[in-house]
Amino acid sequence: MQISKGVEWAAHAAALMCGLPPGTGLRAEALARYHGVPKAYMAKQMQALSKAGIVHTARGKNGGYRLARSADAITLWDVMRAIEGDRPAFTCTEIRQNGPCGATPDQCRQKCAIAAAFHAAEAAFRDHLQSVSLVDIAAGVLADSPPDHLRDVGRWLEAEAVALG
Amino acid sequence: MQISKGVEWAAHAAALMCGLPPGTGLRAEALARYHGVPKAYMAKQMQALSKAGIVHTARGKNGGYRLARSADAITLWDVMRAIEGDRPAFTCTEIRQNGPCGATPDQCRQKCAIAAAFHAAEAAFRDHLQSVSLVDIAAGVLADSPPDHLRDVGRWLEAEAVALG
Repeated sequence: MQISKGVEWAAHAAALMCGLPPGTGLRAEALARYHGVPKAYMAKQMQALSKAGIVHTARGKNGGYRLARSADAITLWDVMRAIEGDRPAFTCTEIRQNGPCGATPDQCRQKCAIAAAFHAAEAAFRDHLQSVSLVDIAAGVLADSPPDHLRDVGRWLEAEAVALG
Repeated sequence: MQISKGVEWAAHAAALMCGLPPGTGLRAEALARYHGVPKAYMAKQMQALSKAGIVHTARGKNGGYRLARSADAITLWDVMRAIEGDRPAFTCTEIRQNGPCGATPDQCRQKCAIAAAFHAAEAAFRDHLQSVSLVDIAAGVLADSPPDHLRDVGRWLEAEAVALG
């Protein structure tokens, strides 16, 4: 069970956008450069966040990305679902209906106990990520970073932020 | 984030073994036939369960698999870990250390807030699966199945079980 790198990148990029001055955004190129990752792949994650309504996209010469809603209303689950989709991690292929003692579809109205357990575990995973917003992440970064690092980030954001049309 | 089909197959096979008469086992071929899946792939899952100490393997003409310990001491997490390994689903590549404002390794003694949140969510997932044993699964199947289906399964197990040397 693996979570794609894109989730890590998108979560970091979205958390960084918490620090943007109002009315401004960051180009995909700047987001990629800030995180030291390839631009094309970062742009792909931003398009997925945009499609999910997590970031707002302004196109054109002064294009860029900013959060589409308040950072405390965006959770890590929102980011993960935007990148990975919301298909369950455990796929039940109903193998209990196979073979010499296969159950009939009529006997399978209840979800298979194995699938039910995995889906409940996934719900616990999801519930935790839903309890963590971008504000929580940004607060964690603020608490853990020395003042000169935060000053550097602030200056970088000020230099790179583009006014979104 | 996807869980491999092998986890579903291994969990069903391990749950079926709860019904084996003492001192007996099932061949990989029988396990595959019961579940209507390819033998080679079922055998691969059984080898992984064997390596993890979940099933006992008897080799040779009268070879087969049985649970290596009490079914209430085998959880769905044990099965999943045996098949998928225990590498975290979320891999932190420390991208906070990249780019123009990259944090120094010294500033990164605390786990990244994003990685910490994902790992806590994975712990919630794991905790749930650790709370579900093969006995719980077998009890669920017993409760949901009509008597004639359970009789069929019992007869099949009796016919296919091999005495393990």
